[in-house]
Amino acid sequence: MLDLIVIGSGPGGYVAAIRATQLGLKCAVVEKAELGGICLNWGCIPTKALLKSVQAMYYAKHSQDYGFTVNGEVTPDIAKIVERSRGVSAGMSKGIDYLFKKNGVELIKGSAKVRSSNEIEVLTSEGETVIYQTKNIIIATGARANSLPFAPIDGKKVISYRQAMVPDSIPDSIAVIGSGAIGSEFAYFYRSLGSQVYLIEYLKNIVPLEDDDSSAQLSRSFRKMGIKVMTEAMVKSVDSQSDKIKVTIQTKKGEEVIEVDKVLSAVGIVSNIENIGLEDVGVKTERGKIVVDKNFKTSVDGIYAIGDVIATPALAHVASAEAINCVEGIANCNPHPIDYDNIPACTYTSPEIASVGITERVAKERGLDYKIGKFPFTASGKASASGERDGFVKLIVDSKSDLILGAHLVGANVTEMLSGIVVARKSGVKAKDFISSIHPHPTMSEAIMEAAAIVHNEVIHL
Amino acid sequence: MLDLIVIGSGPGGYVAAIRATQLGLKCAVVEKAELGGICLNWGCIPTKALLKSVQAMYYAKHSQDYGFTVNGEVTPDIAKIVERSRGVSAGMSKGIDYLFKKNGVELIKGSAKVRSSNEIEVLTSEGETVIYQTKNIIIATGARANSLPFAPIDGKKVISYRQAMVPDSIPDSIAVIGSGAIGSEFAYFYRSLGSQVYLIEYLKNIVPLEDDDSSAQLSRSFRKMGIKVMTEAMVKSVDSQSDKIKVTIQTKKGEEVIEVDKVLSAVGIVSNIENIGLEDVGVKTERGKIVVDKNFKTSVDGIYAIGDVIATPALAHVASAEAINCVEGIANCNPHPIDYDNIPACTYTSPEIASVGITERVAKERGLDYKIGKFPFTASGKASASGERDGFVKLIVDSKSDLILGAHLVGANVTEMLSGIVVARKSGVKAKDFISSIHPHPTMSEAIMEAAAIVHNEVIHL
Repeated sequence: MLDLIVIGSGPGGYVAAIRATQLGLKCAVVEKAELGGICLNWGCIPTKALLKSVQAMYYAKHSQDYGFTVNGEVTPDIAKIVERSRGVSAGMSKGIDYLFKKNGVELIKGSAKVRSSNEIEVLTSEGETVIYQTKNIIIATGARANSLPFAPIDGKKVISYRQAMVPDSIPDSIAVIGSGAIGSEFAYFYRSLGSQVYLIEYLKNIVPLEDDDSSAQLSRSFRKMGIKVMTEAMVKSVDSQSDKIKVTIQTKKGEEVIEVDKVLSAVGIVSNIENIGLEDVGVKTERGKIVVDKNFKTSVDGIYAIGDVIATPALAHVASAEAINCVEGIANCNPHPIDYDNIPACTYTSPEIASVGITERVAKERGLDYKIGKFPFTASGKASASGERDGFVKLIVDSKSDLILGAHLVGANVTEMLSGIVVARKSGVKAKDFISSIHPHPTMSEAIMEAAAIVHNEVIHL
Repeated sequence: MLDLIVIGSGPGGYVAAIRATQLGLKCAVVEKAELGGICLNWGCIPTKALLKSVQAMYYAKHSQDYGFTVNGEVTPDIAKIVERSRGVSAGMSKGIDYLFKKNGVELIKGSAKVRSSNEIEVLTSEGETVIYQTKNIIIATGARANSLPFAPIDGKKVISYRQAMVPDSIPDSIAVIGSGAIGSEFAYFYRSLGSQVYLIEYLKNIVPLEDDDSSAQLSRSFRKMGIKVMTEAMVKSVDSQSDKIKVTIQTKKGEEVIEVDKVLSAVGIVSNIENIGLEDVGVKTERGKIVVDKNFKTSVDGIYAIGDVIATPALAHVASAEAINCVEGIANCNPHPIDYDNIPACTYTSPEIASVGITERVAKERGLDYKIGKFPFTASGKASASGERDGFVKLIVDSKSDLILGAHLVGANVTEMLSGIVVARKSGVKAKDFISSIHPHPTMSEAIMEAAAIVHNEVIHL
């Protein structure tokens, strides 16, 4: 009998399995598609590869800004861009296969169904049904794209991130509905390829989960690059009957109709909790998510759930952290609790957005006593040298404790600066400590120190 | 009477002056050249601008790797590259002027000479001599390039970083003597422009202050890009009589003679401590550096020295930290002591090098009980997506305390990841804390968490 079967091999599932075998558990993973799940195959990784292509192309197109000459046309080769992205994903997916073998994780190819807290039924691609016995089960089946009721995803005209990632050709125009990380990244990608892009957001700000200042900065940058940003705009209908798709949008100014070649639906995700036997064994769900306790245990003993199927932030790194925590719990290893107030989030547009903790909006709503330190990259030497002056570091600091309540970074490479703040927050590092830590010069990360210095009226470079 | 006169407006001097006025001191700065000193005008900032140009050009030249087509030649325009770099420096220098005005720092243009601990004599560019009275003096006159006795810098054939930064044309070939940060950055720059580059290092490793693994990685990357890396190689003579310069080098294999168009002397720096009256007032110096106590006070009461003129690491961020510490001491503000064991260092080659704390070599020499966690970027999803798989994160962790003794990062953008480790080290954050902090995915900074996990046998992705 296995100690553990994990259903799904995404950043929740594969991490759970590897950690489990490290802890001596006999573990198998059931996967019906590519190893690595959405993250490696249709999410985080392949999109970053796509974005790298257009970032590289940006430099060729703006050669004059950097002092070199390109004597000829700069043209995206969409087939090659997609091929590169798929290659990166395939490589990473193979990497998981290697890690499974190295760690002794058994891989079961097929679709899993929970039969009881100790039994899984797998339908293989050959049509065979195999039963596996196990002491524990982790559901890590992830999520898929949500869609608007009046704009079902047909994969051709109305597409999801899946199709957006592997276009045959560059659409002349595309309407992106929803401006979260996925919508905004694709808006940036397609605009960089030359498409006319409409980014349509129902709420007041694009990237609405971010701090207002971050949204405003990205909005400015997007408009500068020619993206038509529409906020407080509600899509009322999508008519894909004719060659061009007619999108009717209710804006503050009235109804607007745009005609585009593609519509990308980026309106969130739906958890994959159907057809895996949850109802049969009585696993409780609520509003489309599996209900779990703080140890990720579902309502049924021996069955756990992590990642996008539960009501925690739907992010790869959260799924991985939950995986480790859950497995260490199963193995009685006294896992380190997850601090859901210290979850970083990144958007890989240009400029990038990186944030952790609360926004200023939330700080106000909660009536907190806080101070703001906001240092713009226009005042950073490294940003000027790099020609990356858009953006800022904004810290929200508790007036009494001097702890970092929230950090909001917009700019080049800020996603790589964020982990330092996460670690600092975890360890109770104060704004004062940032000031008295000698930051390397010249780096854009100095802006973190400067933002902290603003809070204490000690800023030098502003 | 002034409270403080600062001689020199580099990252030591200008920071001292701004902080002094913040603390209510009446302060003036004497500067004979550009505001901002070497760092802003002939060092950190303009070199980063130059490097950005060749990095941008790299993408245009390697368009095929990223999936776009450049239909024509990609050519560096050295005049434009230099113009861009000078423009960035000029902008930053103007920024200091703005900060001086905003903070009420008086700027005195001219060459300063200390007459006593309360008196400075300034020779203005108009040939006038003006005397200033002050309660305190800070010497922050910085340093200049050192040269080999048999290869004096003539500024034409044998050049220093100053001339290397503003070339009229791209030399067909250049020999760089010395492979510290400056030598290595210029080797990378000129090779990227198409020059044949010899990088000559007397010691066993290039970037010899770095961890051996960092040196080995940079050496590999440099060789791959066609730089001729010569280590344990002693330059015996430089003959610039004829059109081509003959450089005779003693290597392990015997004597080698190379012929080049330029020789860049990058063999360290000499402090600017002459002709500023130090001898007259009795300020003690030792081996070319001003002797100071822990409050940066020289042997003469009321006279202080910071930055490259004292025997601490010759880095801009060290000078700035010393400036703040020194001024807060003068203003009786109980400054935060500087931890010289926690000074970050960066080299902006490709890949970049970023480090803080001790190397493994030193850990061994000291007989410390340590563990190594080394995570290669070949195993990082973000690095693969970005096509930046060269490099690693290496942590040297104390076996007992679990504190980070040293961190050595090589790779794209690692200079922006370093400050997080510096702050963590300052605050006593342990390797375990890195593991249990949720790092954003996908970022290359996850490699820090993974390296820490290696130390604790908990690594997932290796």
